[in-house]
Amino acid sequence: MSALGFHIEARDGAARTGRLVLARGEIATPAFMPVGTAATVKALTMGQVRATGADIILGNTVHLMLRPGAERIARLGGLHRFCGWERPILTDSGGFQVMSLSSLTRVTEEAAHFASPLDGSRHVLSPERSIAIQADLLGADIVMQLDECIAWPAAAERAAEAMRLSARWAKRCKDAFGARDAQALFGIQQGSTDEILRRESAERLIEIGFDGYALGGLAVGEGHQAMVETLDFATAMLPRDRPRYLMGVGKPIDLVEAVARGVDMFDCVLPTRAGRHGQAWTSIGPLTLKAARFAEDESPLDPTLDCPASRDYSRAYLHHLVRSGEILGQVLISWHNLAFYQSLMRDLRDAIREGRLEAFRRAFKAGLEDSSAA
Amino acid sequence: MSALGFHIEARDGAARTGRLVLARGEIATPAFMPVGTAATVKALTMGQVRATGADIILGNTVHLMLRPGAERIARLGGLHRFCGWERPILTDSGGFQVMSLSSLTRVTEEAAHFASPLDGSRHVLSPERSIAIQADLLGADIVMQLDECIAWPAAAERAAEAMRLSARWAKRCKDAFGARDAQALFGIQQGSTDEILRRESAERLIEIGFDGYALGGLAVGEGHQAMVETLDFATAMLPRDRPRYLMGVGKPIDLVEAVARGVDMFDCVLPTRAGRHGQAWTSIGPLTLKAARFAEDESPLDPTLDCPASRDYSRAYLHHLVRSGEILGQVLISWHNLAFYQSLMRDLRDAIREGRLEAFRRAFKAGLEDSSAA
Repeated sequence: MSALGFHIEARDGAARTGRLVLARGEIATPAFMPVGTAATVKALTMGQVRATGADIILGNTVHLMLRPGAERIARLGGLHRFCGWERPILTDSGGFQVMSLSSLTRVTEEAAHFASPLDGSRHVLSPERSIAIQADLLGADIVMQLDECIAWPAAAERAAEAMRLSARWAKRCKDAFGARDAQALFGIQQGSTDEILRRESAERLIEIGFDGYALGGLAVGEGHQAMVETLDFATAMLPRDRPRYLMGVGKPIDLVEAVARGVDMFDCVLPTRAGRHGQAWTSIGPLTLKAARFAEDESPLDPTLDCPASRDYSRAYLHHLVRSGEILGQVLISWHNLAFYQSLMRDLRDAIREGRLEAFRRAFKAGLEDSSAA
Repeated sequence: MSALGFHIEARDGAARTGRLVLARGEIATPAFMPVGTAATVKALTMGQVRATGADIILGNTVHLMLRPGAERIARLGGLHRFCGWERPILTDSGGFQVMSLSSLTRVTEEAAHFASPLDGSRHVLSPERSIAIQADLLGADIVMQLDECIAWPAAAERAAEAMRLSARWAKRCKDAFGARDAQALFGIQQGSTDEILRRESAERLIEIGFDGYALGGLAVGEGHQAMVETLDFATAMLPRDRPRYLMGVGKPIDLVEAVARGVDMFDCVLPTRAGRHGQAWTSIGPLTLKAARFAEDESPLDPTLDCPASRDYSRAYLHHLVRSGEILGQVLISWHNLAFYQSLMRDLRDAIREGRLEAFRRAFKAGLEDSSAA
């Protein structure tokens, strides 16, 4: 018996909609998980995050182990209590961060060795330590295996090597995790954009057996087209009856295309990072609110969204806040962006349930194209 | 008939509590007005500001005329609509900002001439232009006369000169303002810490006649003791039946002492500025949350306050946010500080109504002293 129930309620082509059931709450899928890197979804209160419709948020092992420290969070009652989010939390294992944080990272069979960007101190992250941090110290509901995530493009030999190390680490993570009543463990498929490597990775993970399966090593520079082409074959390699999670993705169009290929879960810093830089995502694409054309635009970002940031403030006011470097501009646009993402996920779930995902996808792409043609 | 009703409901010594009645809403006095310099109370949504109990906020003529421009705000429907605060707004006339913004400021009989800190462009602010911006373009509920505010210490001759220019500008402001149904105009007493100058200033303002009277030229470097000694004589010079507003003040202890001397209204950037710098105000004084002693302190800032920021987050979490430079730390501590200030004003109003202000004041000072002795 798994600590994670996954109930698919409707299918439309390869896409599916349903519910993930965890001890701390249910998650409607396909789901977008806001990223709370350092125990905060940047610029927002957890109440604001929840109000957008988020059922689950993400935390980052590497950031939290460096500051404030995983043992400290454990002494303070775990990550949920520390940050004030009582619903499910998924923690990233650190594989991606270790790659992206530091040029001083060295990966051995045993572990990843890296330097803290905060103070240059040296740290070691092994599969066993990653599981201990995520499952025991932070107390995550969904724990990710430690993997070796490589940049794109990668030579086939290098991609194979990283995939096989990740598979050996997957086994060590599973052994360290053991069997738990209220926490789930996900494996991570690697293999770059190579179909043969992706298949080997999936087979090795399935043999170990996980509560869910992630697609890792994408959104690392390969671009939308190569990512979608990889999903065309990689997604179907993962078990149909288990949740599939595309890590670190993405733009709204990426989510639509990945959902159509059978992905159930996503996370990405884009909505909050773009929000802090004054960029609002809408159904006609991103708006750069600093632009002079918004200076006297009285319309809100999106009056159809049930979010104060989307509905109650004019673009002219947001333009002023961005131009003035005001924190409230960062707050409101981040908040709107998360509301837009959650609304998109609701629309996708409804379209799957009603068997009209292909029409939704065409209309979504047409909306973007009309706007870029305008 | 005044556009502003002022109903004193109880007195205790020189202190008074009551209601200011304006077309856009009532204000319980003594009142603290959060400062919304650039059409935003920094880091907070207007919903968060209102939830702390604020009845009125402040806007700044000089900041708004420079960016986004007073005419632009007028085209966008006025300041209330622009920033989403539908209750009363008081606008500062620009006298203090012109002094503090720029070393290139030159004051003539006609107007203040100053350079924009944004781009160095030259601007002229006359009494008539200040009134037009505040009353007609921004649409403030309470409009302040333009004054010449000087630094402390000032030679008696210089203080007298600035006070008399301010009095002549007061008359020009009154003439420009005329009679209005739904907007009030306040005069500003000047005269530094000099009793004779303060008296001449008050007499000249009363002769012109205003809806309310501000004490200007304080909190400019003279310190708590000199300010309180000035209030000892200056406050009583202003009409008993009209609201008295101590501009730019201050720390909680300043508010307590000024209320005891008959002041009804305050504004200060301190709660939000301190909040952005990780300093939380409490009944035992300010807490610097970056300090190591808060790293594992599970207590909230103040569980007795009806504010999520004060009640629902541990000091350990706030410490982490401040150390990590997270925006949410600035948001939560600013929010708590405003809640603490509004709670202090409620306590002061209750103490006056119940005839125990002197006991409250002694207990408040004792709380601060116990803490600094500890």
